[in-house]
This record gives sequence, structure tokens and C-alpha cells, in this order.
Amino acid sequence: MKTSKGRFITLEGIDGAGKSTHLSWVQSILEDRGKNVIVTREPGGTRLGEALRELLLDNSLAIHAETEALLMFAARREHLDKVILPALDRGDWVISDRFTDASFAYQGGGRGLATQKLEELEYWVHGNFQPDLTLYFDVTVELGRQRISAIKPADRFEKEQDEFFERVRDAYLERAYKFPDRVKVIDASQPLASVKNLVEVVVARYCI
Amino acid sequence: MKTSKGRFITLEGIDGAGKSTHLSWVQSILEDRGKNVIVTREPGGTRLGEALRELLLDNSLAIHAETEALLMFAARREHLDKVILPALDRGDWVISDRFTDASFAYQGGGRGLATQKLEELEYWVHGNFQPDLTLYFDVTVELGRQRISAIKPADRFEKEQDEFFERVRDAYLERAYKFPDRVKVIDASQPLASVKNLVEVVVARYCI
Repeated sequence: MKTSKGRFITLEGIDGAGKSTHLSWVQSILEDRGKNVIVTREPGGTRLGEALRELLLDNSLAIHAETEALLMFAARREHLDKVILPALDRGDWVISDRFTDASFAYQGGGRGLATQKLEELEYWVHGNFQPDLTLYFDVTVELGRQRISAIKPADRFEKEQDEFFERVRDAYLERAYKFPDRVKVIDASQPLASVKNLVEVVVARYCI
Repeated sequence: MKTSKGRFITLEGIDGAGKSTHLSWVQSILEDRGKNVIVTREPGGTRLGEALRELLLDNSLAIHAETEALLMFAARREHLDKVILPALDRGDWVISDRFTDASFAYQGGGRGLATQKLEELEYWVHGNFQPDLTLYFDVTVELGRQRISAIKPADRFEKEQDEFFERVRDAYLERAYKFPDRVKVIDASQPLASVKNLVEVVVARYCI
């Protein structure tokens, strides 16, 4: 599945870490350097994926953790087939708001699914294919909550308790520790200007 | 996951094999013998599963074969969690219109996914749990088509060509050959009365 043409950058973090702001920032850094950029998100990114996203965020559904993981990877398989791989083949750069690390964080850390079970799905769906670069925006659960509260009603994930997000954060940090070459941890608790600066340093180095 | 209380019977076959008719028949055979019977179907059987069924049958979506398999198994995981396993635990008998054999037939035979990839999902989702009895209603593709044509517009599966259903049928027969103790092949091309008689013999023997 690996393609050598375009590059695949993923942004990860709990809600309130500032992913959306930084996504636009990464996009403009790349575009300033002449890259053709595709911006997408998970779960979602395709018509089927967006329909699955709606089901996954639906507060009224009590979905089993393993079902949730299978749905996330189903949406991902479609996302790879319809959006990510074709774009990379064309030589475009793809930025995705979340990818497989999020499954290890949310379904693994958050919901408690065994890492091995997630690794099995990961390999089933995308073999050895991985993002070229992952920016993990790290904030404490408390700061994340402060930033998102009062913006919109909580979805099925956002209504989880702080302990859930502590486990999500720990799992993200574990992924970063496990794959230091790919996953760059960015302290997103700093003032916005500092975070943007850090992002630019990491991404610009990557554009050469 | 195995439970020793209730029993789990699945009905399999291509469309036009007469599954729906025989499902009611199996139900009445069991109820006549005092069993508490739950009737369900795949994909579906739960609120999430029925929503996934709609997506899976949607003619306007060109879904990747691997995505399709993941969605089928996601719906199945939920079906096991919310319907099948609780019913078996209560001591009820569960009859499902299709289960995992259908994934080997449709996504394996029909769409060409490798048996090993399906076995991996099968084990991921339900370990060594299997139906206690599977009735596979065998008809030729031609006869199946004759029986369903003009009843309703074709869904995303039904609009496939005959070669697709030939491969589905071959894969079903292969499953029956592989698991002769569990899967009973019933020649559904015979007159209805004869098929019903055969079903009763097989199911009644099973009720002792």
C-alpha cells in the first residue's frame, strides 16, 4: 500500500487540543511551499464514512467497544481506498484530522480494548502503511475541557468522564513513545503563537 | 463466548432459496416443541445493525470489499452483544437469517476476499463461538433468480451478475463441506412440501 509520491500527515489529540486551528496552519505551511494539499478527517472523509461518523457520535446508541473499533476501521478502509491512497498516488499531500493512532487512544486507552486486538485490525486494514508524520497535540484533560466547553453539545465521546480522556491521553503518549520517528509531541498548552511556531518548525523540516 | 443454555440456528442461502419461508417454518417447529424462540437477521438485528444494513444495501455507494466485510462484522459484533448472546444466556433459541457463513459466501466467494482475512475477522469478533446448527438452502442461481425477480427492485447485492452468485453458492457449499457436523445442506429446488419435510427432520432431531 505504501506509495512514495505524496506524503501523509495526521493530526491527533483530544478535543480542545486545538487540532482544527493547527490543521489550517499545517495546510498553509504546505501550500506556501507549493504542495497540493488534501484535507480530510476521521471518522469520515467519504460519503459512507460520514454516515458512519453520525452513527458513531450518536448519543442514543450504546455501541459495544469492539463494534466501535470495527466501524472506525471500516470507515478508515474506505477513506484509504477513496481519498488517501488516490491522493498520495497523484503526488498530493494529505492532512487527516485523526487516523489509526486515534483508535489506539480512544478504543484502546479510552474503552480498554487490548492493544493486540487493535494491532490486528490495523494490520488487516492497512498492513505496514503508516502516516509519514503525525503531530500529536498534547494538553491536559482539564485544559481541553475548558477550551471546548460551551461551544457545542457533547457527542457520544465528549460526554465521557475525565478518567476516560486521561486514558486516551496516556495512550496517545504511549504511541508517541513507541514511534518517536513518526509521532511528534507538541505541547499545545502553550500560547497559540508558540504552538504555531513549533508546528512550522516540524512541518517545514519535513517539506525539504 | 460459548453458552450452553439456548441454541443458535442460522439459515443461509442465496436470495430465492426460500430462507424467509423456511425461517417461519423452523420457528413453528421449535415453538411446537416448547422452545422460546427469538428470530433475527443479518446484517441487522439491532438499531445500529439495521442502520448499517441500509448503508450496505445502498445502490449508490461503491463500497470497497474489505470495508463491506468490516461493516458486516461490526453489525455482527453488535448483534452478538445485544441480541444473540443475551438470548442464549436466557435459555432462548435464536434463529438468525444469515450469520458468518454469509460473509464467507458473499465477501469471500462473491467479492473475492481471501478466506484467511475473513477467518481473522471471524476469530476477532466471535472467537470459537459458532452456530449450533446451520441450514444451508441450496438452489441454482437460475432458480433463485426466477423466484425473486419481479418481487422488488434489486439492492446493491441483488444487482450483481450471475457469476457473482455462482461464486457465492460455491463458497456456501465449501463451508458445508468444511463443517459437515454443523452445516446441513438442504436441496431447496424441490417442491415446498418436500423441503419443509426435510427441514422438520433435521430440526426435530436437533430438539431432543
